[in-house]
Amino acid sequence: MNFADRLNYCVQKFGPLLVGLDPHLEYLPKFILEQELKEKGKTWEALAHAVVLTNQKLLDELHSVVGMIKIQMAFYEMLGIPGMLALQSTIEYARNLGYIIILDGKRNDISSTALAYARGYLSSVSFPGGQFESFWKVDALTINPYLGEDGLIPFIDEANKTDKGIFVLCRTSNKSAPTIQDVSGPEKVYVKVAKMVEFLGKEMIGESGFSSVGLVVGATYPDDLKYLRSNFPSLLFLIPGVGAQKGDVKSLANAFQSNGLGAIVNVSRDVIFAYREDLNNVSGEGFEKKARDRAVY
Amino acid sequence: MNFADRLNYCVQKFGPLLVGLDPHLEYLPKFILEQELKEKGKTWEALAHAVVLTNQKLLDELHSVVGMIKIQMAFYEMLGIPGMLALQSTIEYARNLGYIIILDGKRNDISSTALAYARGYLSSVSFPGGQFESFWKVDALTINPYLGEDGLIPFIDEANKTDKGIFVLCRTSNKSAPTIQDVSGPEKVYVKVAKMVEFLGKEMIGESGFSSVGLVVGATYPDDLKYLRSNFPSLLFLIPGVGAQKGDVKSLANAFQSNGLGAIVNVSRDVIFAYREDLNNVSGEGFEKKARDRAVY
Repeated sequence: MNFADRLNYCVQKFGPLLVGLDPHLEYLPKFILEQELKEKGKTWEALAHAVVLTNQKLLDELHSVVGMIKIQMAFYEMLGIPGMLALQSTIEYARNLGYIIILDGKRNDISSTALAYARGYLSSVSFPGGQFESFWKVDALTINPYLGEDGLIPFIDEANKTDKGIFVLCRTSNKSAPTIQDVSGPEKVYVKVAKMVEFLGKEMIGESGFSSVGLVVGATYPDDLKYLRSNFPSLLFLIPGVGAQKGDVKSLANAFQSNGLGAIVNVSRDVIFAYREDLNNVSGEGFEKKARDRAVY
Repeated sequence: MNFADRLNYCVQKFGPLLVGLDPHLEYLPKFILEQELKEKGKTWEALAHAVVLTNQKLLDELHSVVGMIKIQMAFYEMLGIPGMLALQSTIEYARNLGYIIILDGKRNDISSTALAYARGYLSSVSFPGGQFESFWKVDALTINPYLGEDGLIPFIDEANKTDKGIFVLCRTSNKSAPTIQDVSGPEKVYVKVAKMVEFLGKEMIGESGFSSVGLVVGATYPDDLKYLRSNFPSLLFLIPGVGAQKGDVKSLANAFQSNGLGAIVNVSRDVIFAYREDLNNVSGEGFEKKARDRAVY
């Protein structure tokens, strides 16, 4: 099934919440991290295994109420090889539980290099004498449009071949997003990105009317969100910036069409580390229940 | 020593060639790949180990004539965990031989996520109860400016703390680079990027007069290269697009100041896989000598 259709099916079943697995080391439940450091010493393996255990508890607890997760690659790469093993293990665990997995790597490059990323994460890798299915096997990848169309096409082509999805950074959620994204000539860069993505993704529109190539649009710019929703009806939006970045929750209504489709909303640490609001809970025990409560709310 | 100064010292000793280790699987010397596939079967490990052996031979052969390498992450990530082990092993091998290592990952994100990348590749990783030196420990990282200043500052800050370097994508070498990079409001996006980088990197200017925060500027846009060289005297340029992308070699003169400093020139497959020009060499034996000949030429 087309990625956009799978995503929309998931939104209809579970709602638009996209939980981010961003394992900030300082927020990991203490009872897990301390146990790992005690068992394995002060090692990368201890840190990475604490991440895996935290993710597994979250994925087990959330899977009856959440259908999609976003994995922020930076936190795994930061932990070296043990971190990449934690990424692999988290992806496999989430896949076995049926989650839709969006890998947030904001990758970007051109021609054969862009293809290498796309094949590695979404489709298959060929070599003289054989071919392997993608090692990482996720459902969608975030990418960065600074290099223009030929920086996007290799990703989109590979996604198209395998019914996977792509989210292209368009209007990001951060304070200095306008520096580049609002340069106008006369059209603003982010609008140009949206038009480029609409055009390149038009072959990948599913039965839901949405393309499997969507946009990342921050909740922190409500007017832009509204403008993009009105003007690009076939594009799904991945919306960061709610929660830690204080994006306006009310304005999120502008991200959706009247049928409730059109966007998925990413919340990361405000869900997975919700236990930290209870200052009496220093050990972090029961963090996964708090995450579930927050995800349902 | 400041990264820019180390780089310029290296340019004075070896010239501006930055050899790219982009292990396209289809170009790997056949005698290495076939041996690995025979020994280890059709496995990711066989592919990754063929990459490691190819890189080691190249690094051994080139190190008397080349001082800097650029590692394209996509080709390693594509091979999963064995690929990341190949990346680790290649970095260590190159470091032991004294190469300056630039990791071409074009990473980009904001706040704590950008910090996670910067710490993981350049500086150090803290956790409750300890701190580790960066797992990957490279000298410089390429990054993408689409998110504006606050997408750059975390990278630049970490590089500044540890005398490492950053190259920010500015004018890329590919055909559709202008789509985003030439939007003018009234200033073109890529010029705005250059000004932003000049400002953010001004604390990191070394004795050579260059900042450790430089730009990626494609050889395929000679007029833009000339314009940037004239207007941004403190910025070092990493120049892709020579060789496979047919960038104009003569126009490269515009990238340098009269003292021969100011740019490093990346060539990847045209050096490391130069043996492929000899159609009679089907096994790939002696590929490293051909690479050395090309690097010297």
